[in-house]
Amino acid sequence: MSDTVKYLLDESRIPKTWYNIAADLPEPPVPPLHPGTGQPIGPDDLAPLFPMALIGQEVSAEREIEIPEPVREIYRQWRPAPLYRARRLEKALDTPAKIYYKYEGVSPTGSHKPNTAVPQAFFNAEEGTKRITTETGAGQWGSSLAYAAQIFGIEVDVYMVKISFQQNPYRRSLMQTYGARCVASPSEETNSGRAILAEHPDSPGSLGIAISEAVEMAAGRDDTKYSLGSVLNHVLLHQTIIGQEAMEQMDMAGDDPDIVIGCAGGGSNFAGLAFPYVGRNIREGKKVRIIAVEPASCPTLTRGKFTYDFGDTANLTPLVKMHTLGSSFVPSPIHAGGLRYHGMSPLVSHLLDLGLIEARSQDQIECFEAGVQFARSEGIVPAPESTHAIRAAIDEALECKKNGESKTILFNLSGHGYFDMQAYTDYFDGKLSDEAYDEDALARSLAAVPEVAAE
Amino acid sequence: MSDTVKYLLDESRIPKTWYNIAADLPEPPVPPLHPGTGQPIGPDDLAPLFPMALIGQEVSAEREIEIPEPVREIYRQWRPAPLYRARRLEKALDTPAKIYYKYEGVSPTGSHKPNTAVPQAFFNAEEGTKRITTETGAGQWGSSLAYAAQIFGIEVDVYMVKISFQQNPYRRSLMQTYGARCVASPSEETNSGRAILAEHPDSPGSLGIAISEAVEMAAGRDDTKYSLGSVLNHVLLHQTIIGQEAMEQMDMAGDDPDIVIGCAGGGSNFAGLAFPYVGRNIREGKKVRIIAVEPASCPTLTRGKFTYDFGDTANLTPLVKMHTLGSSFVPSPIHAGGLRYHGMSPLVSHLLDLGLIEARSQDQIECFEAGVQFARSEGIVPAPESTHAIRAAIDEALECKKNGESKTILFNLSGHGYFDMQAYTDYFDGKLSDEAYDEDALARSLAAVPEVAAE
Repeated sequence: MSDTVKYLLDESRIPKTWYNIAADLPEPPVPPLHPGTGQPIGPDDLAPLFPMALIGQEVSAEREIEIPEPVREIYRQWRPAPLYRARRLEKALDTPAKIYYKYEGVSPTGSHKPNTAVPQAFFNAEEGTKRITTETGAGQWGSSLAYAAQIFGIEVDVYMVKISFQQNPYRRSLMQTYGARCVASPSEETNSGRAILAEHPDSPGSLGIAISEAVEMAAGRDDTKYSLGSVLNHVLLHQTIIGQEAMEQMDMAGDDPDIVIGCAGGGSNFAGLAFPYVGRNIREGKKVRIIAVEPASCPTLTRGKFTYDFGDTANLTPLVKMHTLGSSFVPSPIHAGGLRYHGMSPLVSHLLDLGLIEARSQDQIECFEAGVQFARSEGIVPAPESTHAIRAAIDEALECKKNGESKTILFNLSGHGYFDMQAYTDYFDGKLSDEAYDEDALARSLAAVPEVAAE
Repeated sequence: MSDTVKYLLDESRIPKTWYNIAADLPEPPVPPLHPGTGQPIGPDDLAPLFPMALIGQEVSAEREIEIPEPVREIYRQWRPAPLYRARRLEKALDTPAKIYYKYEGVSPTGSHKPNTAVPQAFFNAEEGTKRITTETGAGQWGSSLAYAAQIFGIEVDVYMVKISFQQNPYRRSLMQTYGARCVASPSEETNSGRAILAEHPDSPGSLGIAISEAVEMAAGRDDTKYSLGSVLNHVLLHQTIIGQEAMEQMDMAGDDPDIVIGCAGGGSNFAGLAFPYVGRNIREGKKVRIIAVEPASCPTLTRGKFTYDFGDTANLTPLVKMHTLGSSFVPSPIHAGGLRYHGMSPLVSHLLDLGLIEARSQDQIECFEAGVQFARSEGIVPAPESTHAIRAAIDEALECKKNGESKTILFNLSGHGYFDMQAYTDYFDGKLSDEAYDEDALARSLAAVPEVAAE
């Protein structure tokens, strides 16, 4: 067998529907709550922020939701995404395991994010939205929304976590190239931002703060909506094209995974690959192991509380039940690997709570080691986020080597690292460490999570 | 017709041979000369630097040279490369012209360079080479050779133009990720480097200087060879897979170019797309226009002398007859668009001299404008080098709009710009200018071109 083993699908095999795992859950997740009333929110609560079509997707229980043809047309620019057998990595590890990866780095912005940015921009355009606000950490989401929105002639204002804004001028330029406006958060543009700056003028910012600013700006203007790059049900729904394509490609390979792995920050790329497999586990009684991998410095699933919490720092969003480190949690600035959100997709949290998926956390240096090993065998430099999944895949493959087992491992290579070479530079310069987070700060942010009666 | 129009070839259509235009030239180019004797060089002169297989390709007159199967196997990782119809760009320009682009940015390092890095590493490995030295400007070539050499377990030492080394830490990290050693040139490691530093301690470096260092290191060691990313015949030969695939994809489109455009620094990506079309012009009497586009700040083809000159600054290489600005020419450091070499592929120069191709130069700001317009319509941020080709393609399309003509334009999108966002950052920050070069410096470097009797 050659060392270059790839499985390509014809364009006609781009999925025609998104897969909605809500239809297959043994019990539904609890609904988001209005923080003022403690009652489940309704479409009217979300209407200032999202177009009706996305609100409908957020609450739907239909198993398949049709992908509009104009969205599939744009997907065709880079999809179907390739799936590779990592033969060179297997040989380098000298493992009997078979390792496959779905490579989402082929999109125009280099990651899985356009899979949802494009439909979100489309549905907004259909309903007459003129401007969309959003937050972004290292810039991958902001660039993807900027790319998608310019296709439909919609303006984009991106609130970018300040420390990333300063460390990552190239992502800013990328957003500018696509025509978006990029603001360092916390900023003076919103009440939320001004409140943070008053208390912590040197705040490095966080996704939670940036969400507050973006939400506040959208809620205040009729022609402006808000867009989120992860966490919400409709975002994870859009990402399921990843797993649907992968299932067909694994069929082409004549193989089927024993283990499916994805890195998890807000949960969307993990869900994209994994949810079709979780759904199949549920419906067909299969026992594929599904592993979400997060950074040790932002250990939402492994050390967070599973409870109702705000999605943002200024507490402007509804309360959602998810694993949370507390909405004021700010990961260490030296953490280079992305996946920095204090919360998690409520659906992913629900699956963990039901025992349908596993979670593990990884120290960042071992992740970069895995990333470099992957680059040196497979030729693609992975996004720092994706190195968490690679680390787990390599560890499972080494476990197979120890036990002499030939398991099939499939992971999501959610993006390439070409925009994030600063992180690799710091890694090679020895500037990274595994200092995770301040235990007292974590205790404080967890203590601040609201007590909600209606659970 | 949809706006997403792409033409994909099956893997089996990766060419099985490289196309050697030497077989179709109406008159052969003159041979390189040994600077000491003034006589044509022979294989023994090149043997300290290159493996015999590549020397053979350098001088061959065979029309088709077989691509070894192990090389095709690695090509399969990303080839065949897609060809797109730029419908959105056409609409944005409101032009009747049809614009197509061959997208080479799909390779692991984001440009066309691995097309030659891989065979060069392969042929070196076959002949027992342990280490390869090379030069690189902004880092695209160095990363590509690093990527290719690690597949075969060969060490790589890259001499990187100093100003690029300082401005482009991410390319350094990329090379390090692939396991290569990267040195800022001029360096203290070689006589050539030390000589430059003695005279110009603050030299920003140039490709010519970096070539001198890399050549000197290779010539001095038996287990070490040298590799060049452009200019030489065998390098251009390898790149012809681009044009061969494109011809088949244009057939799929039911179209045929009236104009073929590529940016030109050393000539390899231009030749890759254009040479199959030039060859077809010659053999079949067709009149497809072939346009090489270079930066106004390094105007080799449009303002250089067509004469014998050294390929490097320390005058260690043979003399080759090419368009040259003089081997001591150093483009302005503020030039952000790549394509900075003082010389040109002798084959490309020969074709210009024979009137078989055209050449034009472009100011950099208009190139970045074209790049941004391309990104905003087609979604891909082009490499600064490629923006020269885009500028010319847009100009030809606007010419068609004026004349009401529906010409078919094909250009090479030689790479993406995701590693070169500093250039876009500087463009948006207004730091770029069209200050081309010092006229006196150009006059001096041209005056220093050796007088060679045997022309």
